[in-house]
Amino acid sequence: MIHGKNIVWHDTNIKQEDREALLQQKSVVLWFTGLSGSGKSTIANAVEKRLAALGRLTYLLDGDNVRHGLNKDLGFGVSDRVENIRRIAEVCKLFLDAGIITLTAFISPLAADRENARQLMGDRFIEVFVDCSLKACESRDPKGLYKKARAGEIKDFTGIDSPYEKPVNPEIVIISDKQSIEDCVDDIINYLLAQGHFKDVTL
Amino acid sequence: MIHGKNIVWHDTNIKQEDREALLQQKSVVLWFTGLSGSGKSTIANAVEKRLAALGRLTYLLDGDNVRHGLNKDLGFGVSDRVENIRRIAEVCKLFLDAGIITLTAFISPLAADRENARQLMGDRFIEVFVDCSLKACESRDPKGLYKKARAGEIKDFTGIDSPYEKPVNPEIVIISDKQSIEDCVDDIINYLLAQGHFKDVTL
Repeated sequence: MIHGKNIVWHDTNIKQEDREALLQQKSVVLWFTGLSGSGKSTIANAVEKRLAALGRLTYLLDGDNVRHGLNKDLGFGVSDRVENIRRIAEVCKLFLDAGIITLTAFISPLAADRENARQLMGDRFIEVFVDCSLKACESRDPKGLYKKARAGEIKDFTGIDSPYEKPVNPEIVIISDKQSIEDCVDDIINYLLAQGHFKDVTL
Repeated sequence: MIHGKNIVWHDTNIKQEDREALLQQKSVVLWFTGLSGSGKSTIANAVEKRLAALGRLTYLLDGDNVRHGLNKDLGFGVSDRVENIRRIAEVCKLFLDAGIITLTAFISPLAADRENARQLMGDRFIEVFVDCSLKACESRDPKGLYKKARAGEIKDFTGIDSPYEKPVNPEIVIISDKQSIEDCVDDIINYLLAQGHFKDVTL
C-alpha cells in the first residue's frame, strides 16, 4: 500500500515533509483539554478510530501510556504537573516531526502550559476544549475521583480545590454534555479536512 | 497510497497491530551504541534513507531532536545521563507502539541502561554496536570533542576518562573503521528483512 518507488527521496536526511508525503497527511496535534470526566479520552479515542478508518496514521498520548512510562518519576505536585505537560508537549513535537496525527488527552488545566505547547508546535497545534459542566463531570465520575476529592482523600483536584483555566481561543470547542460523541467526532474530522490535513478517500 | 477501506478496524481502540497493518511493517527499534565519532549518526541516517526508499516509515532520535527538547533540563552528570537514556527508551516504546521503525543514535555507554531499554521493548529491541577503535574515533573527532577532553576542557568523556561498556550480545555488530557505510547499511537492512519487519517491494 505504501510504495517508496513513487516517492523521490533526496540526498539530505529524511524530514517531516518526506514522511508526510509517504503517509499522505499533514501531521497535527489535537490537544484535548478539559475537566476530569469531561470525555477527553472517550472523544479522542472515537476520533482516532474514525481517522484510522480513513486510512490515517494516528497516535494517542494519554495517562495510560505516559504516566506509567516516560513520566513515571513525576508526582502530582505543582512543579511535577508542569513538567508532565512539558514532556508531553516535547514528545508531541517529535510525533509531529514523524508525520503522525497525534492526539493528547490530559486535563492540562493551566493556560501557560498549553501556551508553551502551542509555542513549540506553531500552527500544527490544535487546542480542543472539551467543555462540560463540573456538575455533569461530577455526576459521571467514571473513576470515582470526584467522590474522593470531595471527601478530602485527594488534594488539589482540578475543578474542586485546584483551578481549571478555560481556553480563551481554542481552535475547537466540544460541548460534551450537549453533543453526541459522533457529533463531536464529526466536528473534529471536518476541521481537519477543511485545514487540508488529509483528503477523504471515501468521497 | 494508504487506503483505510482495505483494512478492517475493530471496535476496540486503535492498537500497534492496526498501525502496523496500515504501514505494512513490523515496528522495531534499532538502538545504535558506540563511542563518540564511531559513526552512529552517519550510519543511522544512511539506514533511514535506505528504509525510506523502500517505503518504510522511520524516525531517528538523536542529540539534535532530544537534547534540545525533551531532555533539555538534563546535564551530563551520572544521574542525568541515566535519566537521558531512560527517557529516550520510554519514547522509543511509544514510537514502537505507533508502528514506526525507530532508530536511536546515542553513545549510551552503560550496559545497564541499554539493558533497561531492552527490557522495556522486548524482542523489538535491536542493539547495533558500532564498533570502532578509540584511535580511529579520535582521529576523526568530527566535533573536536576528543581534543577538548584530552586538554581537560571536558570531564567524564566516554572512552577517555569515563567508561564505555561494550555490548556483550548485540544483535548486530558494525565495524565502522573497516566497513563502508553502504556495507553497514546492507547488513542492517538484511537483518530487518530476515526478521520479517517488512517486505522488499523492489524485489
